[in-house]
Amino acid sequence: MKLTKENLSQRLDHIYDVIVVGGGAGGLSAGIYLQRYLLSSLIIDKGKARSLWMQELHNYVGLPTDTPGRNLLKQGKEDYLSLGGDFLNGYVEEIIDEGETFAIHVKIGRQNSTYQVFRAKYIIAASGIIDYLPALENMQNVFDYAGYNMHVCLICDGYEMADKKVGVFGNSEGSLQVAFSLGWFTPYITLFTQGLFDVSPEFRQKLQEHGYPLVEKPIKQFLGENHQMTGVELVDGEIVELEAGLVSMGSKYHADYLEGINLERQGGNLITDKMARTSHPRIFAIGDLKVGLNQVVIAAADGALAATQIWRDIRRATGAKRWQENIPASVTKG
Amino acid sequence: MKLTKENLSQRLDHIYDVIVVGGGAGGLSAGIYLQRYLLSSLIIDKGKARSLWMQELHNYVGLPTDTPGRNLLKQGKEDYLSLGGDFLNGYVEEIIDEGETFAIHVKIGRQNSTYQVFRAKYIIAASGIIDYLPALENMQNVFDYAGYNMHVCLICDGYEMADKKVGVFGNSEGSLQVAFSLGWFTPYITLFTQGLFDVSPEFRQKLQEHGYPLVEKPIKQFLGENHQMTGVELVDGEIVELEAGLVSMGSKYHADYLEGINLERQGGNLITDKMARTSHPRIFAIGDLKVGLNQVVIAAADGALAATQIWRDIRRATGAKRWQENIPASVTKG
Repeated sequence: MKLTKENLSQRLDHIYDVIVVGGGAGGLSAGIYLQRYLLSSLIIDKGKARSLWMQELHNYVGLPTDTPGRNLLKQGKEDYLSLGGDFLNGYVEEIIDEGETFAIHVKIGRQNSTYQVFRAKYIIAASGIIDYLPALENMQNVFDYAGYNMHVCLICDGYEMADKKVGVFGNSEGSLQVAFSLGWFTPYITLFTQGLFDVSPEFRQKLQEHGYPLVEKPIKQFLGENHQMTGVELVDGEIVELEAGLVSMGSKYHADYLEGINLERQGGNLITDKMARTSHPRIFAIGDLKVGLNQVVIAAADGALAATQIWRDIRRATGAKRWQENIPASVTKG
Repeated sequence: MKLTKENLSQRLDHIYDVIVVGGGAGGLSAGIYLQRYLLSSLIIDKGKARSLWMQELHNYVGLPTDTPGRNLLKQGKEDYLSLGGDFLNGYVEEIIDEGETFAIHVKIGRQNSTYQVFRAKYIIAASGIIDYLPALENMQNVFDYAGYNMHVCLICDGYEMADKKVGVFGNSEGSLQVAFSLGWFTPYITLFTQGLFDVSPEFRQKLQEHGYPLVEKPIKQFLGENHQMTGVELVDGEIVELEAGLVSMGSKYHADYLEGINLERQGGNLITDKMARTSHPRIFAIGDLKVGLNQVVIAAADGALAATQIWRDIRRATGAKRWQENIPASVTKG
């Protein structure tokens, strides 16, 4: 059921089999599998899943290619609740490993917040990442285009940029390297440092060879209308015309709540085995938090893997249900 | 486009980047990603994907939990074709490794068959498996219930069997072990050898402890109506009432066409790396053919992995497109 400030006290003494942090595609997939394995689960979601920003989910087989990410999330949440799963809007601040259980400290409500502790045997970290965007004085100007024709994922949206004039917006020389992968889809690439950093002579040489201009002045604002970005106005009033954008400025990992637990990482990503288990035997990580491709369908598959492995762990520790106490020997002898 | 006997001659001289063998969820997912990577692809499908049998796809996040498998396949095929992918109904008989390319020998049409050879640089084996079913004189009696309340996948459908009287149909003692995992969902389990094999004293003892009856007489027919199996009639006329069935008789691997190529296997499954690549650098395997869980969402994710890795291979070998031949030095110096 949907937990609210009014009814959540019913669950404070309950030890869930699994608490899933994050209600995006991965968390919801895990939740659906967990409930179908007859395990008790709670999804705690702070809102704003990365897929919520996606206006069109182009490559999730089975859904029409213009399905907004929010539709997948809505359907998944509905199905999860119909299977008896618990869902709470809240922000997980900290997880404490108590040995047999975890204590999950949650802040509920942005105003007049209350603080509650829930407990579970297993954790699935499905809280994902969020992309850093160009920092302009007026952020609404950025949000107007992000997720429309200002993209953050080359794998997802390279196709949308084919043969278009694309601006690549980075925050380091390394982040701008994505331009050479984008160069598979289009040659009409202009790179923007936003005045944030300098680039090496080698990098300039490589750009020169590819014929990709580099713009090093800060950006005043994006131009466009109806969520279609048509160019950039620089601080000195110069205008660069564009037909699409690719933001490559790294991501914030939503995993501060795991800081007290020592987990193996590779860069910001959690390292997992093939069943999505981290280096802690009762903590799983799925989707964009873990090493691998940041794709909705992969997060959904990760959810299936993590839920299945947790079910196997618990099932093997519990054993099978018994039926007839004294089954006649004749029956088992054919 | 959809290839037919009439138009396929247009493609016989073409070397595809990738030929995907199998048009199930995995193959279609791969195809959608490939087309969005601007690669040329052909899916060759013999029909009868395993998910076509699924009356309700319960755990594919984003689709309502009563979505028939065929709906996912239909939508995926439509989206793949709209992205310019080629699709052919045919049966792949053999694949020959020619070094830079593969020659794919295809039989087209069950009657008045024609035989054609297509070529590709990469292969994605997505041809899956099909479950063996109890072999009765009247197979229609089996097909009436298979995919409804006669299940083949415990992970998918354990939930549907919760607290029901379930018959487990095996073809070896090992195959009947699934009963003890099913015992997580329900205690009311009856096992059927169908008269095909004998079981060990240890196994009888374990059944005795769990109170699960073992029926060793052959089956005459399944009973029921409207696709709901209600029990089994044995050869001697005895009737065992049931509310659901779980068939555990192994699977046929649809991969005979790979026999001439030496690939690493584990049992019948192909071994792949984390990007779904087999031990052959230009052959990928996805979905039920490879080691791992046999789940639609996992096959779909595998398709994304394989397509992405092939794109990376080809992209890196090709390099980025160049734009302006002589970009003014001033532009790249800020």
